[in-house]
Amino acid sequence: MSKLSVDDLNPAIRNVQYAVRGELAIKAEQYRVKVQQNPTSHGLPFNHVISSNIGNPQQKGLDQPPLTFVRQVAALMDYRDLKNIAPNAFPKDVIARADELWEEIGSIGAYSHSQGVPLIRRHVAEFIQARDGYPAYPEHIFLTGGASAGVSLLISMLISDPGKSGILIPIPQYPLYTATLAQFSGAPIPYYLDETNGWSTSVNEIRSLLEKTRQEGKVQPKALVIINPGNPTGALIDRNTQDEIVHLCEQYNLVLLADEVYQTNLHRPETHPFTSFKKVVVESGKDVALVSFHSISKGVFGECGRRGGYFECTNISDDIIAMIYKMVSVTLCPPLQGQIGVDCMVRPPKKGEESYALWEKETNAIHKALAERIRHMVAALNAVEGVSCVDSPGALYLYPQIQLSDKAIEAAKSVGKAPDVFYALALLDATGICVVPGSGFGQKEGEHHYRLTCLCPGVEEYVGKLVEFHEDFTKKYPHV
Amino acid sequence: MSKLSVDDLNPAIRNVQYAVRGELAIKAEQYRVKVQQNPTSHGLPFNHVISSNIGNPQQKGLDQPPLTFVRQVAALMDYRDLKNIAPNAFPKDVIARADELWEEIGSIGAYSHSQGVPLIRRHVAEFIQARDGYPAYPEHIFLTGGASAGVSLLISMLISDPGKSGILIPIPQYPLYTATLAQFSGAPIPYYLDETNGWSTSVNEIRSLLEKTRQEGKVQPKALVIINPGNPTGALIDRNTQDEIVHLCEQYNLVLLADEVYQTNLHRPETHPFTSFKKVVVESGKDVALVSFHSISKGVFGECGRRGGYFECTNISDDIIAMIYKMVSVTLCPPLQGQIGVDCMVRPPKKGEESYALWEKETNAIHKALAERIRHMVAALNAVEGVSCVDSPGALYLYPQIQLSDKAIEAAKSVGKAPDVFYALALLDATGICVVPGSGFGQKEGEHHYRLTCLCPGVEEYVGKLVEFHEDFTKKYPHV
Repeated sequence: MSKLSVDDLNPAIRNVQYAVRGELAIKAEQYRVKVQQNPTSHGLPFNHVISSNIGNPQQKGLDQPPLTFVRQVAALMDYRDLKNIAPNAFPKDVIARADELWEEIGSIGAYSHSQGVPLIRRHVAEFIQARDGYPAYPEHIFLTGGASAGVSLLISMLISDPGKSGILIPIPQYPLYTATLAQFSGAPIPYYLDETNGWSTSVNEIRSLLEKTRQEGKVQPKALVIINPGNPTGALIDRNTQDEIVHLCEQYNLVLLADEVYQTNLHRPETHPFTSFKKVVVESGKDVALVSFHSISKGVFGECGRRGGYFECTNISDDIIAMIYKMVSVTLCPPLQGQIGVDCMVRPPKKGEESYALWEKETNAIHKALAERIRHMVAALNAVEGVSCVDSPGALYLYPQIQLSDKAIEAAKSVGKAPDVFYALALLDATGICVVPGSGFGQKEGEHHYRLTCLCPGVEEYVGKLVEFHEDFTKKYPHV
Repeated sequence: MSKLSVDDLNPAIRNVQYAVRGELAIKAEQYRVKVQQNPTSHGLPFNHVISSNIGNPQQKGLDQPPLTFVRQVAALMDYRDLKNIAPNAFPKDVIARADELWEEIGSIGAYSHSQGVPLIRRHVAEFIQARDGYPAYPEHIFLTGGASAGVSLLISMLISDPGKSGILIPIPQYPLYTATLAQFSGAPIPYYLDETNGWSTSVNEIRSLLEKTRQEGKVQPKALVIINPGNPTGALIDRNTQDEIVHLCEQYNLVLLADEVYQTNLHRPETHPFTSFKKVVVESGKDVALVSFHSISKGVFGECGRRGGYFECTNISDDIIAMIYKMVSVTLCPPLQGQIGVDCMVRPPKKGEESYALWEKETNAIHKALAERIRHMVAALNAVEGVSCVDSPGALYLYPQIQLSDKAIEAAKSVGKAPDVFYALALLDATGICVVPGSGFGQKEGEHHYRLTCLCPGVEEYVGKLVEFHEDFTKKYPHV
């Protein structure tokens, strides 16, 4: 083995943590392999691992079917001859869509424009305009390989002074943000969401933090991250709070980074609708710099493996857009099959088109199943002594709080684990269900949570196992 | 417009340069749009833009056809029902391949293992073992979204001390290296390739540089980048030099970063064969840390838009592998259609399988066409007064040197351009051919080159235009 050691590497890398694919996920993968290799003699108390650690609807075992339209267009772009070899295999609107994309792109084996195929960016702009009622411009849109790539790039650009450039992030947060800040030596400025009020965002709390940071004078706040609908919380921010957030960004000269990848995962849209920050910024008339992120990995699409998404820049000057272009050009271009996915997401089949009925049926089924599962899971979890769970109106997750006894906390300490990690490992060992401990997302001192996805098949059995485990765990480590 | 200005951004970003998609490419794109929008009245002296700035074989206008096998497997993975809807559209081995991948992966709409699908990594290991004759291990292989993503990650990890951690890079080089070093504030230590000796690599030159760097004591060399076959040079490094390079890396404790993405683009394999650095390191018995990169974007594949590739770690400790895993896990996973592409690249159809004959025909045609074009282009360019061009035995490019007169250099200066940029802009304006000026790759003071791809259709017309332009340019700016 060579002399190269961890000490020779960039020390910032050591501080990067990403719990969603961390210790729990690695152990779950080992169990999965064990079960696969010894189906009848694995010696584990379960026969399959349920990966509830990650919002990955189409993964094996969850098997949310892909939307047929998307896959048909993708297949025709992959293998153009199919149009002639199997002309009856595809609806007319699918063939027309593939023809139109082919006319623009040619082979998807070619690099595209680094910012994304111009025609697809035009379609994204039309989608945004139809959603918000205000113009959007293809030149301000960057297609990406999923939202994460864009978030990482923007954060790396905003950290002008390592250790001193600060970015406000919600707690709990999706750990991409803390991981990226650690990688690029940015200073996280955590603001806490209010669990007692449905995980709401408090502008007063953010303002106090900004004042405190200003007085201390060590960190220069550069940007505010908002995740709406929330991850892991599933909360939706009301319009009034959105207005206040934009006002705050103007006052403190913050770039607003709006992670809106769950914008179509709405379980009670009548009471908890989604409003984009693009719309709020435009209607405010303020010159707040906004970057908003979207993705094909979530929503009803769930096309995580295709790696597609986009971000839109609002009130960002042309010279900064040119710098972003320069940076994405080094990575050549986003995956073409991800870009094709974005086109299908922003231009779904319309009423009257051949694919419309199936599209509607498939997407309705996904929305309905998710809403029903969440309702069922929230009710079941809240019925358990020592578990409380906010009823999420959005996204794909629940983030229940669990009461752990002093005995459990001691037992965790004795094996060198955080109490919530100890709990989640025990849950995995007993049930095969892999969740992510709250410490991976952040929580108040002394509180314990876990995040689980609401993507399981057979929700009764799934939540039943969670409940049974919690009761057994509490018996083993009782509150005195 | 918001108050956010370029001065608020990470200053390292400003130093990033990537000429392959820079000024020339942006202007070429503008011409392309102009011609497209006004096909009969564009007012330009050409009717199509030829993008010779980038190794992108399947792009519109070049139209190297994709390999059928790859596209058939990809389409079946995209749209699984095709197997039943159009059972006769696919050869048996294609269906078997897709079934095998489906069995392992399930939907390609799901995130995979962050390091890449385990089965595909096993196939990569088998490919490496068959190529080199020595074992390779799936745990040491990371699938990536093209080679660039891996190169960027590894360099970012190796720069432990911004401004002081040095990486040796060849000049001329592929500008991904200087761009990535600029982004992460690494110190490039440029070593010059010898044009008079077929762009060969001189170990003595590298050694002197290392001694000089050591004496100056400002920069700590951490790694040595080797591009083999070379980009932009097309040179192949002989085995003896490879042995010396490995010895040098051991002596100076350098990580060897071997960019081997052109390993199958060999135009005279009998005299200029490819030997992987993995093989050389293993046979040396030395514990040199090596990371070698491969890609589906080059070779006969040319599947750039799919974004697929891998890197293999040799003599890298498990704790460093775990850190690399942690970093790639933040980006979730490489595009699944890129991973499928890697599987097809490392497991092409075998003799006796239904797809073999077509595969052989298609790949032979690509190899043959490239070798013939290069032979033709080198001969035509070398016949021009003031142009000299090394006859590349590998990769996809030529890197001719051009003699520019004092008049031309003055004319360039008067418009604030580097002389080679001035030449390349004039070439684009006159012919629609977009090449990359040598300053984007690096060249000795006072020398001028450009890189052009050898991927054009109609080589006679293409090279004819280059020759004619050079003669006109020399008439306009004569040597006195």
